[in-house]
Amino acid sequence: MQKKEEMASLTEINDVWDYYKKDLVEVEDQLRKNLDSKVLLINKASNYILDSGGKRIRPLLMIISSSLFGYTSKEVIILAGIIEFIHTATLLHDDVIDNSDLRRGKKAVRAIWGNQSSILIGDYLYTRALSKTISLEVHEINYSVSQACTSMLEGEVLQFYHNGNINITEEEYLNIIEHKTAALLSAACRLGAIVGGAKEEEKDAISRFGLKLGTAFQVADDTLDYIADKEKLGKSMGKDLNEGKITLPLLHLLRHCDSSDKKKLMVMIETNSFEEKDLHYILTLMREHGSIDYSLGKAKYYIEEAKKELPIFEDSPHKKSLSILADYVATRDY
Amino acid sequence: MQKKEEMASLTEINDVWDYYKKDLVEVEDQLRKNLDSKVLLINKASNYILDSGGKRIRPLLMIISSSLFGYTSKEVIILAGIIEFIHTATLLHDDVIDNSDLRRGKKAVRAIWGNQSSILIGDYLYTRALSKTISLEVHEINYSVSQACTSMLEGEVLQFYHNGNINITEEEYLNIIEHKTAALLSAACRLGAIVGGAKEEEKDAISRFGLKLGTAFQVADDTLDYIADKEKLGKSMGKDLNEGKITLPLLHLLRHCDSSDKKKLMVMIETNSFEEKDLHYILTLMREHGSIDYSLGKAKYYIEEAKKELPIFEDSPHKKSLSILADYVATRDY
Repeated sequence: MQKKEEMASLTEINDVWDYYKKDLVEVEDQLRKNLDSKVLLINKASNYILDSGGKRIRPLLMIISSSLFGYTSKEVIILAGIIEFIHTATLLHDDVIDNSDLRRGKKAVRAIWGNQSSILIGDYLYTRALSKTISLEVHEINYSVSQACTSMLEGEVLQFYHNGNINITEEEYLNIIEHKTAALLSAACRLGAIVGGAKEEEKDAISRFGLKLGTAFQVADDTLDYIADKEKLGKSMGKDLNEGKITLPLLHLLRHCDSSDKKKLMVMIETNSFEEKDLHYILTLMREHGSIDYSLGKAKYYIEEAKKELPIFEDSPHKKSLSILADYVATRDY
Repeated sequence: MQKKEEMASLTEINDVWDYYKKDLVEVEDQLRKNLDSKVLLINKASNYILDSGGKRIRPLLMIISSSLFGYTSKEVIILAGIIEFIHTATLLHDDVIDNSDLRRGKKAVRAIWGNQSSILIGDYLYTRALSKTISLEVHEINYSVSQACTSMLEGEVLQFYHNGNINITEEEYLNIIEHKTAALLSAACRLGAIVGGAKEEEKDAISRFGLKLGTAFQVADDTLDYIADKEKLGKSMGKDLNEGKITLPLLHLLRHCDSSDKKKLMVMIETNSFEEKDLHYILTLMREHGSIDYSLGKAKYYIEEAKKELPIFEDSPHKKSLSILADYVATRDY
């Protein structure tokens, strides 16, 4: 198939998943292959969370990024596995920190095997990922992975610090999600470019693309937490609110509702108790004040910013895939 | 002072601490310098645990090891700080996993700032340590650090897996402590040798020294858990037992006591409830059956095994210090 025809055949996100299917299947094999602990529980619980419907957005981003520079090889597959392990490790710790019982619509590891297992297996996956990273013996790769990890941790800690803080600013909120989420998506893009042998300015451009896409991804996720139905999202509505996370829709609402509503909201947040009717009340207020539209608009803004990084690259099915993936991130409704 | 005189002046552990005081003070500075998070809580809680009376055995081992090969420089201090950060990170996670409220006689971080902080700050210190490691850009150092971390995690997981298992064998017990404790002490020795420019066989010998010393260290620690008084140990007696950890003295007792005592012990372990009088009963049985002597003897055996690695090195104050440190590990009573 000619490049032009291939590009024409790529019109929506499912086409993109299909286009990179072979590599993504290899990533799955890689993930299982890395789970060779002598302790059965580690393999069992790790397989359980890896099987629980993660979309593999990070591996996909990395594969597209390296393909953009004409490179697909074993190294990309290994690195994609590393990034997904790191991501999975943070989920395991997040669930303990947030006391979450659900993850992607299934019971969380901590709800089945306990907090202790969730902490230990998170540590284990993280350690495996870093040891695999250094075995590639490329300092630039080491730096990129470790910078992403450091950034994620700063984000997690900042989020924890601001838990329940209704005075958090939009800037602080954006700073948190840039660290905790966007940094790893950005690293996925950069790592793809590194193994793809991209030039410095290309690495920087694709990293910025990943950072903006990652920010949009998290803003969209935080908004869906209020509006998506439970079946599609695989978690209960208002989960963030229950965990004391003040995300963009609520932050907007707190700034725009009248003082009596604000007082009510503040009491709810401080006592951290929400019934079904409270969530309904909050959602109605959000719709009234345009908080949902504002947040979705913000996600779209970051997607447009991300796409502005793409023109420096030559037209190709990979460049088109990045663009489709970007649009999908801001409009997905699962 | 001549080398010979220096050697003669080193007779007990306090002389050793004094001899390397300058370097150890630099390690302390290094530890504080690495705590530059923008989040105050991280620095505060990290400083709290770093200030809580850790003996810095790992930094000391590394400094002596590198000195043995004629090298002391900034790199050793940085690496010593890295190893102490990794050690501290595991303590923070261990306390959550074991539900411990005391650490070295002070309140555990989790008892002051909660489990969530303890998990996050552990993750943070671990990430900082690994990012500092890779910034040295020496693959051999990366491997050594990451192998130690992987080994520690395997040990932690195995320990968790065997929690409350009264059928654990001495071999399994030794395997756990070799992974969870000895591997990091061994890595401290090897890293010292690496920056010291030691030959391969020297690196291997000093690594084996550290592994055996580390095994003795943990066996002694597990025995002191039954016999040391609270003031000196800084934790309550029988802490391991309360956490379901079947360590060497108990393992020996279970193998040697009569069946009626064994039944009583099994019930206590299964229901995980021990009162003061139960601990007294267990300790009396242990003394009766020589379980304490057996364990202390085992620690001494490993110290002798460790010291067998030393003759290949030239006589020096550093070699003598390693020997004094080894004896101290098996006989300390704090």
